[in-house]
Amino acid sequence: MKTAALIGPVTAWRRRAHSPVVFVPTMGALHEGHAALIRRAKRLATNKSSGGKRGGVVVSIFVNPKQFGPKEDLSKYPRPFAEDLALCKREGVDLLFHPAPAEMYSTDASVAITESSLALGLCGASRPGHFDGVCTVVSMLFNIVRPDIAVFGEKDWQQLAVIRRMVRDLRIPVKIVGHPTEREEDGLALSSRNRLLSPEARRVAPRIYQALLATAMEAEEAQAEAGTATTSVSKVLKRLKQDLTVIPGAEIDYVEIVDEVTLTPLKKLSPGVNARALVAVRFDSVRLIDNLSLTSRR
Amino acid sequence: MKTAALIGPVTAWRRRAHSPVVFVPTMGALHEGHAALIRRAKRLATNKSSGGKRGGVVVSIFVNPKQFGPKEDLSKYPRPFAEDLALCKREGVDLLFHPAPAEMYSTDASVAITESSLALGLCGASRPGHFDGVCTVVSMLFNIVRPDIAVFGEKDWQQLAVIRRMVRDLRIPVKIVGHPTEREEDGLALSSRNRLLSPEARRVAPRIYQALLATAMEAEEAQAEAGTATTSVSKVLKRLKQDLTVIPGAEIDYVEIVDEVTLTPLKKLSPGVNARALVAVRFDSVRLIDNLSLTSRR
Repeated sequence: MKTAALIGPVTAWRRRAHSPVVFVPTMGALHEGHAALIRRAKRLATNKSSGGKRGGVVVSIFVNPKQFGPKEDLSKYPRPFAEDLALCKREGVDLLFHPAPAEMYSTDASVAITESSLALGLCGASRPGHFDGVCTVVSMLFNIVRPDIAVFGEKDWQQLAVIRRMVRDLRIPVKIVGHPTEREEDGLALSSRNRLLSPEARRVAPRIYQALLATAMEAEEAQAEAGTATTSVSKVLKRLKQDLTVIPGAEIDYVEIVDEVTLTPLKKLSPGVNARALVAVRFDSVRLIDNLSLTSRR
Repeated sequence: MKTAALIGPVTAWRRRAHSPVVFVPTMGALHEGHAALIRRAKRLATNKSSGGKRGGVVVSIFVNPKQFGPKEDLSKYPRPFAEDLALCKREGVDLLFHPAPAEMYSTDASVAITESSLALGLCGASRPGHFDGVCTVVSMLFNIVRPDIAVFGEKDWQQLAVIRRMVRDLRIPVKIVGHPTEREEDGLALSSRNRLLSPEARRVAPRIYQALLATAMEAEEAQAEAGTATTSVSKVLKRLKQDLTVIPGAEIDYVEIVDEVTLTPLKKLSPGVNARALVAVRFDSVRLIDNLSLTSRR
């Protein structure tokens, strides 16, 4: 595995790489969720049409200051670099790019990418500027790595939707692949922030996913009863809120049922609209997010 | 010459093109200034290191609605497509990309690129949002065409500086080349808007360049006298304003002497700082811009 802290060696590596180059951007503190993204990337990098030549898998580790608010956990964000390096090696990553902030941002940087629709609600409401920071850094990483494909986890559903929108609107020639959320055996979505939970919070946190599962089941039953008609969202949403409210120590940041592409809140569940429940819950200062499709795939 | 109104054929052409691909983005209404940019692009596209294989020259013609304000001349902007096509053929362009607005912008587009330093003054002060529109479309065109090099005219100096800043800050892998302003025999900078001038305005408009030349000469003399010391900008600037004010029918939009990279207004001319005078003048509804270096190249 090649590692690079500077842009120059990445550009040089890219010139010699076979297609497809598949990219997994991360903030480090890698866990099995990231490992699953990397394994997906490795499968995508196997180009059958080029006579068995394999494309390359690039992982970046960059705790992007521009996507943290002034009161957020930038300094506390875990940075276990040696462990991250070992995981990348173990998973067969070809190139690990781990720039320092000064390599990415000039001190007088004045250009940013903004998304003014999908980024405003949900996590964006309590984290103003967060998704502009995400769009800007992802676009920069794409310009440096020039991947054919990039893999993002579905756990950060809003982030995935915003990046798909950016790629569509700016005509960025990168195929975006969303990978399903990896979970602990008890259902808790894998996250670098899980390790910051108190033991009590860690014990009850799986109830977030249980509430989402119950909601999906209820939505499916309601839609089966309604047939081709529409079902009101309000009853389903009320139940989900109730389930989250009773989790000890949990404080709801948001609970919404939205169109999974535009992130517009839905009033009705109807055939042909892909609905998704998105939640954010705080345990003390640790904020967890999760989401689940409410559209029957049967 | 290949022409394409859709993105797909451009992408397909790009995959087969040799490097370097050199790009000249325009809004059409092409004149000898554009022809000079295209000829510069052709020279840059000759890649001596690839055994005589020539890279490609791409021109785009797109009157970008996002860089016009609601009260600006979008609908009046000239669109002489047949003549533009003939000029591109004559100059040996390899690919002409001429998308309609709907090919570039989805109706629910929500992503933009903003520049928050260089874009605020000068033309940006009277055209809010203009340079964000420029950055967004240039970035999109770069994503579609994927040029190695792009050529912009120095006549639009602020635009050139903003694009250089965008390319630097977003790490866009395109080399930006600025090409000196082409002028009529009487010194008027070539512009698509010159044809909109009244005969009287056209007659006196060359005095803009004459004023800039006089300013450059005065600045050079003042600096020669001062030696390695600094020279105050105010006297030079006052003379330039005076020269522009007395042009019959001319109304000054701005006159500034700035650092030519950061566009920060300068108080002093000093060795090592590249100063440039930038002006915008209106004749009725027609707005002309021009600029000149105040730094002695001797």
